[in-house]
Amino acid sequence: MSDLFWPGDHRAGDVMSTAAFLDALVAAENAWLAALVDSGIAPRAAAADLRALIRPGDLDEIAAGAERDGNPVTGLVALLRSRADGEASQWLHRGLTSQDVLDTALVLCLRDAMKTITDDIGRQLHALVELTEKHRGTPMLTRTLTQPALPGTAGRKFSVWLTAVLDAAEGLKALPPLPVASGGAAGTFAATTELAGSPEAALALARRWADGLGLAAAHPWHTTRSVITRAGDALVGCCDAWGHLANDIAAATRTGELYEESGGGSSTMPHKNNPVLTVLLRRAALTAPPLGATLHAASAASVDERSDGGWHAEWATLATLTRRTVVAASEAADLLAGLRVGTDRAAANLAAAQDIRAEQQKMAELTGRKPAPGYLGATDLLIDTALERARHYLKDAR
Amino acid sequence: MSDLFWPGDHRAGDVMSTAAFLDALVAAENAWLAALVDSGIAPRAAAADLRALIRPGDLDEIAAGAERDGNPVTGLVALLRSRADGEASQWLHRGLTSQDVLDTALVLCLRDAMKTITDDIGRQLHALVELTEKHRGTPMLTRTLTQPALPGTAGRKFSVWLTAVLDAAEGLKALPPLPVASGGAAGTFAATTELAGSPEAALALARRWADGLGLAAAHPWHTTRSVITRAGDALVGCCDAWGHLANDIAAATRTGELYEESGGGSSTMPHKNNPVLTVLLRRAALTAPPLGATLHAASAASVDERSDGGWHAEWATLATLTRRTVVAASEAADLLAGLRVGTDRAAANLAAAQDIRAEQQKMAELTGRKPAPGYLGATDLLIDTALERARHYLKDAR
Amino acid sequence: MSDLFWPGDHRAGDVMSTAAFLDALVAAENAWLAALVDSGIAPRAAAADLRALIRPGDLDEIAAGAERDGNPVTGLVALLRSRADGEASQWLHRGLTSQDVLDTALVLCLRDAMKTITDDIGRQLHALVELTEKHRGTPMLTRTLTQPALPGTAGRKFSVWLTAVLDAAEGLKALPPLPVASGGAAGTFAATTELAGSPEAALALARRWADGLGLAAAHPWHTTRSVITRAGDALVGCCDAWGHLANDIAAATRTGELYEESGGGSSTMPHKNNPVLTVLLRRAALTAPPLGATLHAASAASVDERSDGGWHAEWATLATLTRRTVVAASEAADLLAGLRVGTDRAAANLAAAQDIRAEQQKMAELTGRKPAPGYLGATDLLIDTALERARHYLKDAR
Amino acid sequence: MSDLFWPGDHRAGDVMSTAAFLDALVAAENAWLAALVDSGIAPRAAAADLRALIRPGDLDEIAAGAERDGNPVTGLVALLRSRADGEASQWLHRGLTSQDVLDTALVLCLRDAMKTITDDIGRQLHALVELTEKHRGTPMLTRTLTQPALPGTAGRKFSVWLTAVLDAAEGLKALPPLPVASGGAAGTFAATTELAGSPEAALALARRWADGLGLAAAHPWHTTRSVITRAGDALVGCCDAWGHLANDIAAATRTGELYEESGGGSSTMPHKNNPVLTVLLRRAALTAPPLGATLHAASAASVDERSDGGWHAEWATLATLTRRTVVAASEAADLLAGLRVGTDRAAANLAAAQDIRAEQQKMAELTGRKPAPGYLGATDLLIDTALERARHYLKDAR
Repeated sequence: MSDLFWPGDHRAGDVMSTAAFLDALVAAENAWLAALVDSGIAPRAAAADLRALIRPGDLDEIAAGAERDGNPVTGLVALLRSRADGEASQWLHRGLTSQDVLDTALVLCLRDAMKTITDDIGRQLHALVELTEKHRGTPMLTRTLTQPALPGTAGRKFSVWLTAVLDAAEGLKALPPLPVASGGAAGTFAATTELAGSPEAALALARRWADGLGLAAAHPWHTTRSVITRAGDALVGCCDAWGHLANDIAAATRTGELYEESGGGSSTMPHKNNPVLTVLLRRAALTAPPLGATLHAASAASVDERSDGGWHAEWATLATLTRRTVVAASEAADLLAGLRVGTDRAAANLAAAQDIRAEQQKMAELTGRKPAPGYLGATDLLIDTALERARHYLKDAR
Repeated sequence: MSDLFWPGDHRAGDVMSTAAFLDALVAAENAWLAALVDSGIAPRAAAADLRALIRPGDLDEIAAGAERDGNPVTGLVALLRSRADGEASQWLHRGLTSQDVLDTALVLCLRDAMKTITDDIGRQLHALVELTEKHRGTPMLTRTLTQPALPGTAGRKFSVWLTAVLDAAEGLKALPPLPVASGGAAGTFAATTELAGSPEAALALARRWADGLGLAAAHPWHTTRSVITRAGDALVGCCDAWGHLANDIAAATRTGELYEESGGGSSTMPHKNNPVLTVLLRRAALTAPPLGATLHAASAASVDERSDGGWHAEWATLATLTRRTVVAASEAADLLAGLRVGTDRAAANLAAAQDIRAEQQKMAELTGRKPAPGYLGATDLLIDTALERARHYLKDAR
Repeated sequence: MSDLFWPGDHRAGDVMSTAAFLDALVAAENAWLAALVDSGIAPRAAAADLRALIRPGDLDEIAAGAERDGNPVTGLVALLRSRADGEASQWLHRGLTSQDVLDTALVLCLRDAMKTITDDIGRQLHALVELTEKHRGTPMLTRTLTQPALPGTAGRKFSVWLTAVLDAAEGLKALPPLPVASGGAAGTFAATTELAGSPEAALALARRWADGLGLAAAHPWHTTRSVITRAGDALVGCCDAWGHLANDIAAATRTGELYEESGGGSSTMPHKNNPVLTVLLRRAALTAPPLGATLHAASAASVDERSDGGWHAEWATLATLTRRTVVAASEAADLLAGLRVGTDRAAANLAAAQDIRAEQQKMAELTGRKPAPGYLGATDLLIDTALERARHYLKDAR
Repeated sequence: MSDLFWPGDHRAGDVMSTAAFLDALVAAENAWLAALVDSGIAPRAAAADLRALIRPGDLDEIAAGAERDGNPVTGLVALLRSRADGEASQWLHRGLTSQDVLDTALVLCLRDAMKTITDDIGRQLHALVELTEKHRGTPMLTRTLTQPALPGTAGRKFSVWLTAVLDAAEGLKALPPLPVASGGAAGTFAATTELAGSPEAALALARRWADGLGLAAAHPWHTTRSVITRAGDALVGCCDAWGHLANDIAAATRTGELYEESGGGSSTMPHKNNPVLTVLLRRAALTAPPLGATLHAASAASVDERSDGGWHAEWATLATLTRRTVVAASEAADLLAGLRVGTDRAAANLAAAQDIRAEQQKMAELTGRKPAPGYLGATDLLIDTALERARHYLKDAR
């Protein structure tokens, strides 16, 4: 179901949806049961495909029941136990605590989101490389503190956005490998050690689980939440970058220097061509930082061996931030693919700007050399550097 | 559909849901059409019940289409026009802009939420009055900066919560009457003036609309967003109050002085009796302030005659904050109704605290009087004041 | 000492400075001692002017010592005791806890700040009334989602700002009277009751103290912090309003429709006339909402009879938010006093906008009436309403 | 001057103070002039030590003047020009824009702060290693959602904090090398190219400048602010970690399981031994996330070639966040060095916990093996891993 309060939400499809979250919870339980069986801790007869036991209609019941225990896992486990065969029913979830399952499921959803965001960043970079190359020499006024500053080019502006998006992309890439959450009730592997027969076997079981899910094994992180805060920071960093370029487009749409090829309409003014994707990206950038801050506040509220509210504050916050970033990644890619330069207006606005070479005159007085034609400085070199960095990133990403 | 990421979400039912929002959008359009007809601006033949034209299945289509124009109203209007009869189709929405409709619908949803929050605050106050009276004299240690301070009573603690909840309740009550949003495309009533024949008639039309919806008429507030920020601040203030009492319960649950009568279980530890509602309230209090801040940031981003992203950032933020406050209001009411005092543990902990009358000794030295028995100061008077305030509020609220 | 990181900080002078805070702490202690003596609880010989005992050089010592006990009051009291004469030394601070003194001092500083903010809002309103009246008929394009919408006037834009500032001003005015903080160590008046002989006499002593400081008496609010959060919300609401008008000016400075009469220069570009006050107001609006949210988070962290960190998080946050609001209030007043309309550019931009009367055509088709000249709707009535509200506020404020 | 609103502020000394910021601004200008001379662009006669031209008393004048141009650099340059000899006066600052200087100065201050934070983290890690080793086997109850969970050890708790602090430390370490800001008025090196004769020579000049300051050279980042947001995120991550351990200490101080060896006193209750450093760390953790969010919001507000308020919002925000993190780093190191385990109380609380081996019974039923004595699982292995990681970090840091 799409979110009527967040136009564009449908772009994210099922990524970090409640349905996907339920699937991930079940996938985590399923892989754990498989690891118990495969490592010989549970009997062969306990093998089962838990995913087959859950039906879409279960979601509402599990969600409503989640309040009784404070999270959806206890209810899910009860449901699975009621539907699984004898041995599977006995063995499933043994050694885990609800936080192991819930955190691992969040991470699985996050992984899917990171994948689609990264793909859309690739689309953005391709569009930006093209825009930069095409408009390397297109004259466009630079402005600082809103006012005309020096001569410039559209290509340079695009190459700055390229840098911004690359910074964001590298923020995502620099995240440590996404881990499973494990450790059981108190983060000591007490139950798994009891089941597996030794601490070493318990850790091996957790590693097998991680392998089964394609995640990294990790020291228990019930109360050390940098996995979540770092991911959140990186997602906010993406929204920052898109917010920045959206601001530039909003400003340049006012002056006619840039425009969205196919903007949106008005319910009452037939002539409007609104920069809708630009506006929606600005929206995302306005709302992302406080969500990132909430993840930090939740992390900082960690206490005991498992927290009394800080943890619970993370789930919806991370889900919202992640899903909106997925939506914005896609919107930014489309926006850049459909962005056009109003070259005539750009040239006219540049021509109308007064005194923008006054600085150059002063430099010429100092050097005694004649002012060079144009006043673009190292623009070309800077564009080359940005393009080179983009190409390097895109080659690596392939 | 319940939100698996926010246990307890089902408590809010349809309040501030996407379905309720769609209903409210249609209700706003419907009342406007009625006002056009009733005031004689539109012909009688344009009368229609627009609510009958919308089906639940429309929601996804409207949501997905909302991105094209940046909001769901343009698509909704097109849908209504395609389904309404000739004159109604011609006249519906005339004079409005999408922001008029969307803001008014938000306000309608907010009104429903305020009603249920206020009702649940009433339940909380009743429970707190009862707890305060019952435990007026139940001994309980006071603590400051985590450490034993002076002798105290459970009743005094409950009366402090009473004060906190009353402060929050009065914050809600102090909000100006909820208004419709009006003014049209640029907030000047240009189209309605054209339709109604004069500025005065245009404003009268807007008042008629407001009356039809049971809302206040108001100066256009497309870019002056105190309606939203004040509501947000008041909602956050409620979550603050519940967060405060939840902290106290969390601390007292550790020492056995307070406990939730029916706490939640663990997926692996059968002995657990977790203070689940307490934990979920702490969660709400952790996440609310940044949502309130986002509403302010959105308000501060207002620009032009209608904003380029600030406005769009409000909808989901307000919806989330409001819905969570509705959930928390209900959880807090249940929590307080089921809260119990561990009187033996409270007495034992008080008895074990050392030196907590050292301050009194110092005072006695100064006055030369013998220390009074007990050291409860004005506890009884303060409790009386809080109870009196609660009774006054509850009588007014009836 | 001015804050090099916040240009304009010097405008706030001593308001909510560390020096003013120390003065307020001493004033609170001084008034308490006077109340003890005047009510006959302490002997006449204990009368003293504690303010004479503190020297500017004490500030650093008290600040550094504040960490030992977690707040500056304990150290201040020790210093006062070491310098006061016998009886005064014995009696000063008796019955108070450090939180009583610190909170009361914060409130005293806040009162001074509110006064100067309110004065500067008065200046803003006068400037806005003048701008609105002068430019009631000055043609200026309206824009929505960055794009040309309908014809408009500069006066209408100014009257919208007037509304925004009035909303903020009324938010300040709606705050409950600022109270002293009292109640002693555990908020029960235990020590004051012991000193005064009865609970009633204890409360009377607190009222006398409040009277001495020109503040309201209040139920102890050690852990119910709406005094702080409501003040914070109202201050953020002011910054929102100034942020909004600064955004409009920033946008209109780009198009030449508005400009700061005396903008700022550049370190390298001699031709620049930067809208510096506008930029600095945008800065204030960007940073205020998270400070307000911090006050809520601190309030929500209340626990026990006095909190273990939440309280401590408030002081610097409130001081920063308040001081910046004082600075911004003054900057906004100057900005509006020096704001000029680029009437030629405004007229030219309006003339260049295409199709901005398309909506009117559609309305004319519906009504069958000829489109009226102009398309300003109820602009004049709306301006009148805003001006009337401003005059009413200003008369009340006198 | 110490900050009376933030007890402990004196610990940061001059780090990220306004005085240090002024020094850094001058150092940046000084190194630039040296680079101009050393590269042969400016004549030898322009060589000068600009640092000698500034006096402490200049700070207030520069701060007050900063508002005229929106930042302190223009005024500083004017002051330097008025005091420098002819050629130096002519050449200083040429090629730079105020943002180059200000951002570079911020980075220089940040570098100093990072150094002291890292040193204090080293002290924390040493204390934690010692606590972990000493209390590896000290029995202590684990708790989840505030309630008794399983048997545990104090050493395991300390090793979890070790992990938290190491995560934070590695967040700092993972930051890209701190860069100078360069590029001139529009980020194109236009003026430096004019001065240096070619784009290549302009970039070489910027590299020489960076070398002179011990910073990295970088692509201009006037509007791509990940340098600031990443640093901010890492600082917030540190405060999160200290907040977490402070929460644990606050909770364990209530139960007597942990205590600060030398806590703070009360202004009225002589018996109090308050966990003051704990409380002050909780304060820091409550206020840091919204400051980090402000840096993101400022970054996302980037526009044009230099921003119209977003940039200005960063300075004080970064300075406050950084300075508080410096203070908290030092406080956390002292807190951990003076932390003591109440072994008797810890043992008694563990003994009193009921049913905490119920989970183990269930596991034993499944495996058919007798429950092992103790129920500590992989506690020893997990401690070893954390200690090993700490030793590795500390060796690298040497």
